[in-house]
Amino acid sequence: MTIRAVVWGENVHEQTNPLVADIYPDGIHGTIATALDCDEITAETATLQDPDHGLSEDRLTQTDVLLWWGHAAHGDVSDAVVERVARHVHAGMGLILLHSSHFAKVFKRLMGTPCNLTWREAGERERLWVTAPNHPIVAGLPTHFTLENEEMYGEPFGVPEPLETVFISWFQGGEVFRSGLTYRRGAGNVFYFRPGHETYPTYHDPNVQKVLRNAVLWAHNPAPRLQNVGDAPNVPVNAAPEPIVARGPSLHQDGEEGFR
Amino acid sequence: MTIRAVVWGENVHEQTNPLVADIYPDGIHGTIATALDCDEITAETATLQDPDHGLSEDRLTQTDVLLWWGHAAHGDVSDAVVERVARHVHAGMGLILLHSSHFAKVFKRLMGTPCNLTWREAGERERLWVTAPNHPIVAGLPTHFTLENEEMYGEPFGVPEPLETVFISWFQGGEVFRSGLTYRRGAGNVFYFRPGHETYPTYHDPNVQKVLRNAVLWAHNPAPRLQNVGDAPNVPVNAAPEPIVARGPSLHQDGEEGFR
Amino acid sequence: MTIRAVVWGENVHEQTNPLVADIYPDGIHGTIATALDCDEITAETATLQDPDHGLSEDRLTQTDVLLWWGHAAHGDVSDAVVERVARHVHAGMGLILLHSSHFAKVFKRLMGTPCNLTWREAGERERLWVTAPNHPIVAGLPTHFTLENEEMYGEPFGVPEPLETVFISWFQGGEVFRSGLTYRRGAGNVFYFRPGHETYPTYHDPNVQKVLRNAVLWAHNPAPRLQNVGDAPNVPVNAAPEPIVARGPSLHQDGEEGFR
Amino acid sequence: MTIRAVVWGENVHEQTNPLVADIYPDGIHGTIATALDCDEITAETATLQDPDHGLSEDRLTQTDVLLWWGHAAHGDVSDAVVERVARHVHAGMGLILLHSSHFAKVFKRLMGTPCNLTWREAGERERLWVTAPNHPIVAGLPTHFTLENEEMYGEPFGVPEPLETVFISWFQGGEVFRSGLTYRRGAGNVFYFRPGHETYPTYHDPNVQKVLRNAVLWAHNPAPRLQNVGDAPNVPVNAAPEPIVARGPSLHQDGEEGFR
Repeated sequence: MTIRAVVWGENVHEQTNPLVADIYPDGIHGTIATALDCDEITAETATLQDPDHGLSEDRLTQTDVLLWWGHAAHGDVSDAVVERVARHVHAGMGLILLHSSHFAKVFKRLMGTPCNLTWREAGERERLWVTAPNHPIVAGLPTHFTLENEEMYGEPFGVPEPLETVFISWFQGGEVFRSGLTYRRGAGNVFYFRPGHETYPTYHDPNVQKVLRNAVLWAHNPAPRLQNVGDAPNVPVNAAPEPIVARGPSLHQDGEEGFR
Repeated sequence: MTIRAVVWGENVHEQTNPLVADIYPDGIHGTIATALDCDEITAETATLQDPDHGLSEDRLTQTDVLLWWGHAAHGDVSDAVVERVARHVHAGMGLILLHSSHFAKVFKRLMGTPCNLTWREAGERERLWVTAPNHPIVAGLPTHFTLENEEMYGEPFGVPEPLETVFISWFQGGEVFRSGLTYRRGAGNVFYFRPGHETYPTYHDPNVQKVLRNAVLWAHNPAPRLQNVGDAPNVPVNAAPEPIVARGPSLHQDGEEGFR
Repeated sequence: MTIRAVVWGENVHEQTNPLVADIYPDGIHGTIATALDCDEITAETATLQDPDHGLSEDRLTQTDVLLWWGHAAHGDVSDAVVERVARHVHAGMGLILLHSSHFAKVFKRLMGTPCNLTWREAGERERLWVTAPNHPIVAGLPTHFTLENEEMYGEPFGVPEPLETVFISWFQGGEVFRSGLTYRRGAGNVFYFRPGHETYPTYHDPNVQKVLRNAVLWAHNPAPRLQNVGDAPNVPVNAAPEPIVARGPSLHQDGEEGFR
Repeated sequence: MTIRAVVWGENVHEQTNPLVADIYPDGIHGTIATALDCDEITAETATLQDPDHGLSEDRLTQTDVLLWWGHAAHGDVSDAVVERVARHVHAGMGLILLHSSHFAKVFKRLMGTPCNLTWREAGERERLWVTAPNHPIVAGLPTHFTLENEEMYGEPFGVPEPLETVFISWFQGGEVFRSGLTYRRGAGNVFYFRPGHETYPTYHDPNVQKVLRNAVLWAHNPAPRLQNVGDAPNVPVNAAPEPIVARGPSLHQDGEEGFR
């Protein structure tokens, strides 16, 4: 059975900026979905403009890995959808955040930090170095690859220490950036991947496309989605793994729900 | 100069439950503040009932380390105050979460995960084992110590992988729990410490008090608080560390603020 | 293609101690290999007594995941074989250390720490709690499972902070232990799994067997084994990714090997 | 009481290469020791040529933080001294590895990995970016600083995932490198800091000197050095924290030493 990926696109600049529309006539999300489709992955798209942003409870339940690209309209994403996506990540859905999605509500929600950085849009050269050789996300890649025109993102990147640093970028203008970072949030695998400014043809680059396919395979958690994520069940005295007798004063009755 | 600690207490059960009032006539926060006061630490208190919950911008600016105890009234804490505390943590304020504060809004905000667990209130024995010998937080402690009556918290604990695991608890009823975990969020040091159910005299225990004093010393970041936490400054082409010339199409003007 | 696992057994107590021989007539390694064999895994064995301890260069080249059980004869393992195994792990071979192999030379070699612990052989009850729900290593397991008779291992466990904590054990006698820890060393995935004292039938336990099969699947890195692990190649000036001109004084000639 | 630092220098090129002797007439170790001396730190030196390489048991017992610079003569360092240093790190001594000491025996011993990298000696520009703002190691530093002439070290750097990434370097020739990494090994804090090729005046740079002073303060563990590092004590049945009765077959007698 193939992995079911959904590529979420903000789909704003593709509609309003002729430059972007020219590079991505199918939308950034469309280009990425086409690049993902292969024997192991079936990819669909969803956009900000769809009802529920295309991310209903049903849709997420049937999504193994969600990819997210947003930039101009982070604020238009409904808080309810953000919480829904976060819950599915905690339950085991993979999530891949792309480029300017460092400021997506759902990334800040999952990181707990500002996720800020420095930036410059000058079409300068970016070179991505693999820092974790043989990591599944870099399968088939050379030790480094170059994007001739990209937006610069510079350190410090306001995120928690990652589980693993997979890529670090060199920029022509003198900055560096941790361009590929893995996290685990609950049962969900999370990957941030830096490149992808909408005025350059980054998502047409074969190395970038390979990273995205690899990342989907890596992020996929085949275990059944966790149920009741966030529950804090009471274990009554008579269900304790070892026999004990209740002692001392109590606030709670056995089996009750507890405060939240 | 001493470290300025503020102990925040929800101060609900101390007012409504005679058992708790009897154990903590000065409030849980009051007992902890008294325990913290020493040559190196000056401790004050703040409560849910104070204006701004006692955590105004001015107060936080003058707080090196904030300790947080809440249980029954997490939902009554204002979202604005939660964001204010989170911002100060990102800027360098230390934060120590106690016991049922695993469900405090600010802990969930900083972790990005549900922070859930299993629990049982049976006055059973808890034994805390040091897993990081010679960590500053365990200075002067034995290899393990026991609390004769405590609430049980059991794994899985719904938090991200910590920077360091400092304590793991054994419970009489058969469960285990990672009782002391460190994190860094932005420039702020964060420590979660498990014990402290309000119906038991845990915060009168000398080992627990020693952990709290050590944790305040550890969490204190003497660097000046970061300003403009969360800013994503544009670096104009003419300010790039290396000389470059802008190329290709642009969405932005030099030095503009960018999307959020 | 199936994953090629090799189970290395010290094979001493199975030969010298009738109790152990009775529980493991095929050797601990034989029992484990039988338990691993399935549609996805082909398992063989190797022992201390084999030429090269059964771990020749050729054998390791054809091994995807090596499992290691040793106890009484760590000192008899040849340093050359230890280095060979470590090199293959760095190059991408998975390694699973079992029980008393916390003191195996190769584990200490890869961790860089003493890997010590406290212990007691009293046939007491051990209960393993899953701390990373939905981690591939816990697929199909309940939230916890019990081994009625096991040797106790207690914290502090002298290892570096792991990548992930997957299991924590509760012991009847009052101790706790981080029983399942993941590491990455070079391109190799490393897993330490605690249970397995030779006087108890632990490796006949279905949950333990499931953990071992899961761990083999998790540890397998399908990427081609890295070549020349440990090389520090010189990048001559004329091969630099960006054009530069050599400046200033030099110790080395272009392309030379460098000091080690 | 001041922190007692010892700067260990290989002291080979300072004696044999006129260029290096000219830049460091007091030796690299001498220059660093002078830079470290301040109200909070008392710094001494030790060299390869001293008896016991200047690192006797007594000397290490009285050393809070050891700094290590080696390059041409890693192989001449006695294995016994390497083990002695490693033991003191496990027991709580701080250790700071400088530049080409990525290949020092003691660093490889503590990391468990090859610690390799790519390199080029072209006097190119290096720019170090702070990736952990307000970390104690970057106190008083700007967001980035530049060394006009340095040797290039490039990723991948063959080390385990660090506790924290503190600096990342940009190189003029197009490479990047994780230039400041923290680790904890036992009770000892370990810091690797990249710059410092002997043909350039790097250790005269005020920012580099500030990093080194900060790193000494950070690496210092004020707790009493752990004793008997590496011991694996038996806990007899009658000393178990909870009352238990021995059950089942045994290999060991109560309180005996166990296998290693």
